[in-house]
Amino acid sequence: MRINKGVEWAVHACALLAPLPSGRGLNLAALAEYHCLPVPYMAKQMQALSRAGIVQTFKGKTGGYALARASSEINLWDITRAIDGPGSLFRCTEIRQAGPCASSPSECLKTCTIAAAFAKAEHIYRAALREVSLADILTTTASTVSPDHLGKVFGWLSENATTLPTSSH
Amino acid sequence: MRINKGVEWAVHACALLAPLPSGRGLNLAALAEYHCLPVPYMAKQMQALSRAGIVQTFKGKTGGYALARASSEINLWDITRAIDGPGSLFRCTEIRQAGPCASSPSECLKTCTIAAAFAKAEHIYRAALREVSLADILTTTASTVSPDHLGKVFGWLSENATTLPTSSH
Repeated sequence: MRINKGVEWAVHACALLAPLPSGRGLNLAALAEYHCLPVPYMAKQMQALSRAGIVQTFKGKTGGYALARASSEINLWDITRAIDGPGSLFRCTEIRQAGPCASSPSECLKTCTIAAAFAKAEHIYRAALREVSLADILTTTASTVSPDHLGKVFGWLSENATTLPTSSH
Repeated sequence: MRINKGVEWAVHACALLAPLPSGRGLNLAALAEYHCLPVPYMAKQMQALSRAGIVQTFKGKTGGYALARASSEINLWDITRAIDGPGSLFRCTEIRQAGPCASSPSECLKTCTIAAAFAKAEHIYRAALREVSLADILTTTASTVSPDHLGKVFGWLSENATTLPTSSH
């Protein structure tokens, strides 16, 4: 099992949008360039983030993407779910209802013990991702990278961010 | 993302082997029949369980499979890892080392904040699966199914279990 690799790109893209002031955004070409990704790969993640209401899309010449809400209000599960979908890691196919000792549907009103144990573990996994916001990621990252590197990133952002139109799509 | 569906089959197969007394086992055909699975599908899971030391394989006419250790000593992570592999859900591709603001390898000695957050959640997920043993699964299942159903399963087991040869492979 493996999370869709787009999740990594999407989290990094959101983390790059997070420090931008209100009214400023990054277009697809800039996001793709920053992450060394082909534009269609980046576009797919941004579309999924937009559909999930995590980023706002601004069309037009000075269009681009901005976070749709505060970075403290977007967590790693929000982004994972947007890119990888809401499906469970473990999907029960009701094996207990097949074979020579099949249980009847009426005997299976309660979730299978095995599926329930996996669901509980997955609930805990999602909760752990929900506990980490983009704001947390930024705070921790800022405390671990050099001031020089931070300066380089902010320099790139100020050169590449666009002033967004007033209406989003 | 989704766990390999073989994990469900493998956990059910181990749960079926768990109540057998020492020296008794089930062969591949019986395991496949019980789970309504084509023999090659069942074989693949049993081979992986055998490689991981979770089941013992006994060859020959009365051969078959038995758990390699007590059901209290086999947990859901053991089985998941055996079937799905030890790889992480989230695999970091070091995005931070690419692009116009690339960090140098020497700046990346500490795990990326994003990868670290996913690794922490996954650690918690695995720990939750480690907490559930096959013995726990059996105890909980036995308390939720009807005595009639339990009788049916034990009847099938006593008809289909073989007396294993003394040496395993």
